[in-house]
Amino acid sequence: MAAERVYGLHTVRSLLTRAPQRVHKLWLQQGRNDPRAAQLEALARTAQRPIERADGARLRAWLGDVVHQGVMAEIEALPPLREEDFYTRLAESPEALVLALDGVQDPHNLGACLRTADACGVLAVVVPRDRAAPLNATARKVAAGAAETTPVVTVTNLARSLKLIKEAGLWIVGADAGATLPARAVDLRGGRCLVMGAEGAGLRELTRRSCDWLVSLPALGAVESLNVSVAAGMLLYEAIRQRQAAQPQEPE
Amino acid sequence: MAAERVYGLHTVRSLLTRAPQRVHKLWLQQGRNDPRAAQLEALARTAQRPIERADGARLRAWLGDVVHQGVMAEIEALPPLREEDFYTRLAESPEALVLALDGVQDPHNLGACLRTADACGVLAVVVPRDRAAPLNATARKVAAGAAETTPVVTVTNLARSLKLIKEAGLWIVGADAGATLPARAVDLRGGRCLVMGAEGAGLRELTRRSCDWLVSLPALGAVESLNVSVAAGMLLYEAIRQRQAAQPQEPE
Repeated sequence: MAAERVYGLHTVRSLLTRAPQRVHKLWLQQGRNDPRAAQLEALARTAQRPIERADGARLRAWLGDVVHQGVMAEIEALPPLREEDFYTRLAESPEALVLALDGVQDPHNLGACLRTADACGVLAVVVPRDRAAPLNATARKVAAGAAETTPVVTVTNLARSLKLIKEAGLWIVGADAGATLPARAVDLRGGRCLVMGAEGAGLRELTRRSCDWLVSLPALGAVESLNVSVAAGMLLYEAIRQRQAAQPQEPE
Repeated sequence: MAAERVYGLHTVRSLLTRAPQRVHKLWLQQGRNDPRAAQLEALARTAQRPIERADGARLRAWLGDVVHQGVMAEIEALPPLREEDFYTRLAESPEALVLALDGVQDPHNLGACLRTADACGVLAVVVPRDRAAPLNATARKVAAGAAETTPVVTVTNLARSLKLIKEAGLWIVGADAGATLPARAVDLRGGRCLVMGAEGAGLRELTRRSCDWLVSLPALGAVESLNVSVAAGMLLYEAIRQRQAAQPQEPE
């Protein structure tokens, strides 16, 4: 299995907590002896993972110019989620949020969508095999660790997959520049699969017909469209806003 | 003055309509003779702007691999908006949305923020002189034309600028990872300046103290933070959602 490097306090702590068996080694920057570093050390020791120290120059050489906070881990790469296993997992989480990308072929955009999907608690990102950006080094770097926590499911046929997602109890919501229904007017509180199209081209006709709702996002400016990861972020934000607003204990 | 190339039906139509004096020349792809191209030709002719034809290979050589829709314009670059002129313009638009970037030093992120700001009808993007990404070719390319329609204001001192923005009647809302107030719980319907910090570091202390509200955005995943342009997109989305929901004629 391939190894990957991830960094940042939150990302590394999350992996040590949720999937310690995937952590090969914890690296801490020399001089980093604060309580949060000590907490990571304790987690690694409990899971019997080796801990090493490196200076800033070495971390920079490995990671480039990123905000690593003096914390890095070598980990087992997240194995791809097989299509069948995805449907099984979905059947156990009918309230889940799923993000599907129809024709996003740029690895940079795939990575950016993965990062946003992770921040929004998305169960998995679905991409069609024939029109998908590869989950390569560029995509992983832009995802800033999210490729190791949020699985990508490569499906053979997106329209068929959307049908199976629907059968698992989710509703399909596509973002479409021509839609007249604003996203806020659609109920996004239950299980939903949000579908984004390629820039310029938008959703394919077959994908569009698979959607239960087509919704629009802000387009008040002179420029043609939003970047796909920003558009995905807005639609996921709207879903989370509705879910949180529905919780009675939260002030609104 | 520098010349820039912009592309896409919507972007070019918008420039021909809003600022025809800035258009040096309209370029249409050979064979593009549909009603939307004819509309652009009519606009250019009315404004007495020259029109030329180019084949796809030539457009690709100029623009790279983008969705140009067979439409390009050579235009006068948008002149920088001077700080004094920005405050004058603000005094005339106390209901405006402004986006301020505190320490966004990557031109790619500046371009992405500009594009999102444009889509959300932002009056101007404010950046501090000492910690700002340059509005260079990379930023302009990522902005996909928005650098020619949404002005960037470079200010000498961000804290002082936020004070003057406040005096113009806007409220200052900062996005902060540590905030307990969700963005949806704050009234964003009037004039607002939304402030985003650098990835990892967040808002500077002096900037934080200039804010009327500090709000949080979704952070449900394992990865540290959202990309700044996605976070800006979510906060701008929330502002627009509130404004549109407040319009009585719209179904909600």
